[in-house]
Amino acid sequence: MTSSSPRRGYKKLINDPFSAVDEALDGFVAAHSRLISIGGPRVIVRRTAASGKVGLVVGGGSGHEPAFAGYVGHGMADAAACGNIFASPSADIVFAAIRAADHGRGVLMAYGNYAGDVMNFGLAAQLAAADGIDVREVRVSDDVASAPQSESRRRRGIAGDIIIFKCAGAAAEEGRSLDEVERVAARANSLTRSMGVALSACEVPGSGGPTFDVPDDEMEIGMGVHGEPGITRGPLRPADEVARTLVETILSDIEDRGSGEVALLVNGLGATAYVDQYILYRGARRALEANGLRVVRSYVGEFITSLEMAGASVTVSIVDDELLLLLDAPASTPVFKV
Amino acid sequence: MTSSSPRRGYKKLINDPFSAVDEALDGFVAAHSRLISIGGPRVIVRRTAASGKVGLVVGGGSGHEPAFAGYVGHGMADAAACGNIFASPSADIVFAAIRAADHGRGVLMAYGNYAGDVMNFGLAAQLAAADGIDVREVRVSDDVASAPQSESRRRRGIAGDIIIFKCAGAAAEEGRSLDEVERVAARANSLTRSMGVALSACEVPGSGGPTFDVPDDEMEIGMGVHGEPGITRGPLRPADEVARTLVETILSDIEDRGSGEVALLVNGLGATAYVDQYILYRGARRALEANGLRVVRSYVGEFITSLEMAGASVTVSIVDDELLLLLDAPASTPVFKV
Repeated sequence: MTSSSPRRGYKKLINDPFSAVDEALDGFVAAHSRLISIGGPRVIVRRTAASGKVGLVVGGGSGHEPAFAGYVGHGMADAAACGNIFASPSADIVFAAIRAADHGRGVLMAYGNYAGDVMNFGLAAQLAAADGIDVREVRVSDDVASAPQSESRRRRGIAGDIIIFKCAGAAAEEGRSLDEVERVAARANSLTRSMGVALSACEVPGSGGPTFDVPDDEMEIGMGVHGEPGITRGPLRPADEVARTLVETILSDIEDRGSGEVALLVNGLGATAYVDQYILYRGARRALEANGLRVVRSYVGEFITSLEMAGASVTVSIVDDELLLLLDAPASTPVFKV
Repeated sequence: MTSSSPRRGYKKLINDPFSAVDEALDGFVAAHSRLISIGGPRVIVRRTAASGKVGLVVGGGSGHEPAFAGYVGHGMADAAACGNIFASPSADIVFAAIRAADHGRGVLMAYGNYAGDVMNFGLAAQLAAADGIDVREVRVSDDVASAPQSESRRRRGIAGDIIIFKCAGAAAEEGRSLDEVERVAARANSLTRSMGVALSACEVPGSGGPTFDVPDDEMEIGMGVHGEPGITRGPLRPADEVARTLVETILSDIEDRGSGEVALLVNGLGATAYVDQYILYRGARRALEANGLRVVRSYVGEFITSLEMAGASVTVSIVDDELLLLLDAPASTPVFKV
């Protein structure tokens, strides 16, 4: 009955911890070979390259599966750059992804706003620019718990990624210009807010222990997906209370609610059961409705995980006809199909 | 450092444990209202009822989400009957599901071979027969660890469900007769074998503790999805060894390998990371290839979970043109889209 037992819940089905990322990618490519293929070390590309369209590159650390490789395919990304567990892909990897995604009309990179990613995606963009590729970027920054609104440029990206990837990917697939795809992605990001709750940690293979510790009867509101500190730590509370806290914090951050229509995404972090995810979704939906908003699109499941972390996040996007058309456009990736 | 700490990994985001199933279903229906709706207490039906086709009813205990309600939709089931956590739906619930699925050409029930389900689905079929509905059933029995081949009628159903639901659903959607849909489902079941490994337990809401205990440095091969005893318990082993054991046990149970083409499904039980699932998939695929088989269709993810249990199962189906056409036929359900 101690809170310091590091093993329970973290038993793994792997071989060598240091080859886990590459073996998992190897399995991923074999499993989804009808849709994607390997475009170089740690680069996943569409099996059949698109042509004549703006390229979309996504990416980030591994350990967040099915992100990021799971979102490569028709209607979403052209390539994903995959780092080590919870670590940015190197600039070389991102550069290779950009080259694979470039079809002569420029490339948009969409990725979560983390220091390592900002550095390596930025370096890669410079390399690509030297090759004559027009590269833009949108740093997803949906996590309202990661910095106050006055420092929103410091905010991290979490499950809101999916909304931005989907909208940007749909715009690119339609044949829109790089300016337009960049505008759409930035707009989707500006209309999207998320906040999460962590119940327990995960273990990076080979690290020998959990990434952080949350006592057995507590939860941490606003904790980041790699264990970054949250806003409050306290006793476990009922799902409806958690949902209300997350939704009200998100709404207090939104100035313009548009027509009041929102997309609601609940993302399981790994070890939280779907029963819990759907109860959290229900609570979040009720909290939104109590605040006069209408949920017109819903997504529930494990979109961006943190290995076997327990917890979940709520993402709210203010939507209008433009975003709804992009969200509903066809997509065919290993894990996201419309 | 004790193996008896019951809390880690089992912290839940719920409200009242005794309303968890209904609240989760409520959330599920709200989230997926474009595809499904509630057809009565604990019954999920297609939003737009089909017509002129054989009905397919699936179901079983809750706690296995996204099974079973997640497989209701075009190309798969017409209705799902949902019980309490790890408990069969009552005969009344199943009967209501049958009535909702009946379009005048009869109804096939496909469900896992568990005593409670056999009793309640059987009673419901009798009620339906009294109403003049022709009801057949296929009890999925893919788990080779649950009984020896000589007692294969006692075998339980686990993730092989998905293969049987998909094939039967596609056959029904094509407009085939009840005889044909029943034949296809029985054939898919006869060609499908699974085996799993459990690393840690889960906790039924309100029960106060885990369903079973696996020591911190051990795993149990062949354990059932509700904690039914497996074949061997022993030290944690590398994923490739586990995959080989599962695949070789499965293959030793298959007499006719057909042309050597198989579908391979790896199912995460809840708390096992996708990295691990894809490494297990890779190991299983290699083990199949080492035995002269070719993997022609692949499915990796959480299809039938056990709340937040850690572990995974491997399912192998011998396929031919008939099964491949059914597996590849269009499907549009909340969680399974082709």
